[in-house]
Amino acid sequence: MRIARQTLWEELLQLPDQPHLPLQVRLRSAVVREILAGRLTPGAPLPSSRDLARLLHLGRNTVTAAYRQLVDEGFLQARARSGVFVAAGARAAHAAPAWAPAEAAQAGALGAELPRGRAPQWGTRVLRSLSQLPTLTKPERWRDYRYPFVYGGHDPQLFPTEDFRECCAHSLARSQLALWAPDFENDDVPDLIEQIRQRLLPKRGVFALPQEIVVTVGAQQAFHLLADALFDSRTRVAFEDPGYPHARNTFALRQPQFVPLPVDAEGAVVGALPRGDAAPDYLFVSPSHQCPTTVQMSLARRRALLQRAQEDDFVIIEDDYESENLYAGTPMPALKCLDRSDRVVCVGSLSKSLAPAVRLGYIVAPPALAAELRGLRHAMVRHPSAFLQHAYALFVSLGHHESHARRVNQAMQERVQLAALALRRHLPQCNFTLPQGGASIWVQLPAGVDGAALALAARAQGVLVEPGDVFFQTPARPCAHIRLRLSSIAPGLIDAGLQALALALRACPPPRCLGA
Amino acid sequence: MRIARQTLWEELLQLPDQPHLPLQVRLRSAVVREILAGRLTPGAPLPSSRDLARLLHLGRNTVTAAYRQLVDEGFLQARARSGVFVAAGARAAHAAPAWAPAEAAQAGALGAELPRGRAPQWGTRVLRSLSQLPTLTKPERWRDYRYPFVYGGHDPQLFPTEDFRECCAHSLARSQLALWAPDFENDDVPDLIEQIRQRLLPKRGVFALPQEIVVTVGAQQAFHLLADALFDSRTRVAFEDPGYPHARNTFALRQPQFVPLPVDAEGAVVGALPRGDAAPDYLFVSPSHQCPTTVQMSLARRRALLQRAQEDDFVIIEDDYESENLYAGTPMPALKCLDRSDRVVCVGSLSKSLAPAVRLGYIVAPPALAAELRGLRHAMVRHPSAFLQHAYALFVSLGHHESHARRVNQAMQERVQLAALALRRHLPQCNFTLPQGGASIWVQLPAGVDGAALALAARAQGVLVEPGDVFFQTPARPCAHIRLRLSSIAPGLIDAGLQALALALRACPPPRCLGA
Repeated sequence: MRIARQTLWEELLQLPDQPHLPLQVRLRSAVVREILAGRLTPGAPLPSSRDLARLLHLGRNTVTAAYRQLVDEGFLQARARSGVFVAAGARAAHAAPAWAPAEAAQAGALGAELPRGRAPQWGTRVLRSLSQLPTLTKPERWRDYRYPFVYGGHDPQLFPTEDFRECCAHSLARSQLALWAPDFENDDVPDLIEQIRQRLLPKRGVFALPQEIVVTVGAQQAFHLLADALFDSRTRVAFEDPGYPHARNTFALRQPQFVPLPVDAEGAVVGALPRGDAAPDYLFVSPSHQCPTTVQMSLARRRALLQRAQEDDFVIIEDDYESENLYAGTPMPALKCLDRSDRVVCVGSLSKSLAPAVRLGYIVAPPALAAELRGLRHAMVRHPSAFLQHAYALFVSLGHHESHARRVNQAMQERVQLAALALRRHLPQCNFTLPQGGASIWVQLPAGVDGAALALAARAQGVLVEPGDVFFQTPARPCAHIRLRLSSIAPGLIDAGLQALALALRACPPPRCLGA
Repeated sequence: MRIARQTLWEELLQLPDQPHLPLQVRLRSAVVREILAGRLTPGAPLPSSRDLARLLHLGRNTVTAAYRQLVDEGFLQARARSGVFVAAGARAAHAAPAWAPAEAAQAGALGAELPRGRAPQWGTRVLRSLSQLPTLTKPERWRDYRYPFVYGGHDPQLFPTEDFRECCAHSLARSQLALWAPDFENDDVPDLIEQIRQRLLPKRGVFALPQEIVVTVGAQQAFHLLADALFDSRTRVAFEDPGYPHARNTFALRQPQFVPLPVDAEGAVVGALPRGDAAPDYLFVSPSHQCPTTVQMSLARRRALLQRAQEDDFVIIEDDYESENLYAGTPMPALKCLDRSDRVVCVGSLSKSLAPAVRLGYIVAPPALAAELRGLRHAMVRHPSAFLQHAYALFVSLGHHESHARRVNQAMQERVQLAALALRRHLPQCNFTLPQGGASIWVQLPAGVDGAALALAARAQGVLVEPGDVFFQTPARPCAHIRLRLSSIAPGLIDAGLQALALALRACPPPRCLGA
């Protein structure tokens, strides 16, 4: 198939709709697409670079560079004095299945032979589903809301594009490949383990051996991994109430018995833990920045907790959540730092502020447990991407991790202060404690107001907030809490957004709330 | 703390031991390390770029560039006419915990108060362990063996370094960030879904809707996810015997009842499946390239399998393993392509040949199941890295995926042919079928020879091979199989390696093997 008429080339090499990619890349992508689709066949001549440049309104250098690379890659072939052609070996993608003409007919015949059968009953086959468990949700078109006090936005000003790109490029240098490209089996990239040990953990007062650290696909995998190793239906797991739904839901897959543990101004109320035979086997806490209340656990409470763990022989799973995102007050040592009997398993996130770019977290656990976790991790995902591990190790070693955390903290502190001002001005009937870190505020609504109803009513005002009920094991009805998240909203819109929320609150059922 | 004597600078700014990184990066890393360690404190002057260049034997441009970037990043501060200083805000890492001096003493006191307690009994606490299940292993120092017929090596000649780096760099362009940096919740990067749908699946005869595709952290996560959604102790799972241990072991976490299914020259023996009440609920097969036998399932067998699935109402989990790595014979349509009643769930790997760089795979499943899988995936890892998804989508769209597969296939075909020649020459008493794809050969040893014993004896000759027993549900003793993998061994060493294996076989117990 030779393509003669030039007008055809214009259609054929229509640049793909990727306006942000360089023209040269888009041209290559178009040529490859046409070859693989069988519309450009081996031996077909391509227009001269001059002609094509004119036809597609590209610079001639762009076309020459694209052709050169496609020749290098074996898609095109340059013949001296005759121009550029589709290479003899550049087969269409569906040329590969030789069954396409012959066997596909048989396959069709098979289809005719086999009656179109009944489909499996997925409703009864799915044994473990999270689709009915309450969790953090937002409407699909949440970006269309003017005041998104929810998680998920991306602030290009805060993303360390150049730093991260530099680290990836270094990791992809040919000389670096040998450090991460071979299979690691159950091990992690040593550079990353060293950065975690020597740079990140000491800030939390934790000094760990390399074999005590297990890298995970974000903190979320750490929770899943621990539950799969340690929980079944006989396991009693004490869990902060309110607490972090994403941890509770992954724990729920292993069906443990949850023991709700109230939270006060000092953090999880250790004294409320049942004792003796009813004592938990595990306790999940986020002492550095309780989710969702943002409370930091006091030192006295930490002591009491460790003491109790020892007396009642339970293990503490410490979510060291947002410990790096503190911008006020005194950071506390991690529970893991104070632990004198190997009872604390500590979970950290490396990539929170870069997420969902990088999905990296870690577990610090006693060596015997860490070895089991590595075996399970292999069965779950083999291992977290070694390329990202290597690149992130460099990111930490160059200080980007700290600078980035600092930049994010400054931005969030500003937003939290703006939100606090606006709350006092527009919603004086609501209570909240000014957080010392992180990017959210836990708001207590007037008695009788339901957070979920308010969240729904607020949508009509263009405001998205998180209803508080999803954080509770058994939420009160009405549940008079919402959480405001500040990572997706522009600082300049915070005041207007909370003013709009106040409007929604005034209009919000039940009528009791008007009298509150 | 001002540092005056120049000799100190030499020690202080000793470049880190990362010989392959550019000098400028190593210098920045050293300065950051010293600042964070508190050895360079805010206000401390740095040597002039001229002095430091002389001292460390660096080019002056290198030092200037490093200083400039450190100033941009806020670690250093340039003062007109006085030079470069550690910035006022560049605090040491452990300066952050204000408890370091005061509270740490209390923490110490706490340590003294609390007796060093007994540690938890991990042996009884770990409820699910894979450490006792047979799996593919190799000695820790396997790279020291001369003839590694095992998986895990890295061939820099085959790794598409430049192509992959270009794609990562494009994804990290500021203009591209908006396409992947926001949170996707349960969704995947649309570009990657489109490339899978439009470029990869059609080659397998599969045409799927976007909502039928779930991206995973490699094929391994796909198996884990499916088992967690669908299996419990009452579930009967038919599994090829011999079969793929990494899938079997992750399935085993959910404790299903395995139904072993023999494999012959046409693939899994469908006729051997129990019927009626004893029929399986699920069947795991690798029809495109059975692991470990490398057999491709015949079309007749595929038909029979689909027919049976419908009659006995079971679901087929198709591991479309190495379907792209075929270099001889006729590729067959995927079972998913022939399926007329939504009974096939198809698992593919995107990153096999790039692993462990990229960990990406996918599941094609009916929409009802796919939605449940996305919910579970969120509880397991939130989502696979969106950055890698975006970069890999570009890698596919530029044709790199296909070129790379072609390059790897050519290399593996050459190695398989060399190995086949050497096997016939040095080990004529062994049987094998020449594979039509992939990078391994399944070898039947003379009757009475134990593969595990041979693998052990071979180590003394510098040869590593995989014993066959780990692939079987209940291996025969002796188990007269080994698998040779060819992805880690240089082509030039294959003949000598198999000659050495022949030596080991001659010396191998039990004595029966000598007479075989």
